[in-house]
Amino acid sequence: MTAKLTEDQRRLELSSLSAHGWAETEGGDAIVKTFEFGDFVSAFGFMTRAALWAEKMDHHPDWKNVYKTVEVTLSTHDAGGLTMKDVELARKMDALA
Amino acid sequence: MTAKLTEDQRRLELSSLSAHGWAETEGGDAIVKTFEFGDFVSAFGFMTRAALWAEKMDHHPDWKNVYKTVEVTLSTHDAGGLTMKDVELARKMDALA
Repeated sequence: MTAKLTEDQRRLELSSLSAHGWAETEGGDAIVKTFEFGDFVSAFGFMTRAALWAEKMDHHPDWKNVYKTVEVTLSTHDAGGLTMKDVELARKMDALA
Repeated sequence: MTAKLTEDQRRLELSSLSAHGWAETEGGDAIVKTFEFGDFVSAFGFMTRAALWAEKMDHHPDWKNVYKTVEVTLSTHDAGGLTMKDVELARKMDALA
């Protein structure tokens, strides 16, 4: 099982992710970001690319799509909070967007 | 612009949709249904098929995916409530699921 981030890891990783628009949820068990695209095709195209990666990483986002926006929440339910899997998926999604 | 359903249309269409698991939201401006699949690949496969139809119909769902579930909300924002577009997309999604 992937371990929860230590305090030092959190500080390091979250400072880098927050510079890219990710925010911690209340309680700190998850990170969220809303991606905005030009239209539905672009938004769903992003989701499709991210879905293939998520399945390959065996780590899946909770996400909501409303037309051209995609609101993503990442957390590792097994670990009860944030792990490196969330950090990696967040970076991957940023790269794909 | 597509017109909101009349009271008679609502009664007719919603009784048929509710038999397939769709429910009205409070206020009646939208219908919701949660689809459940065997795994993420099946859930996202459904979303991909539905996305192609939604784009073709130029009518898009608000939807949230958490692993193997997809929670769908349908409403016609331009019309301020439910229209035949929502009824048609709901039926299409039922057929695709």
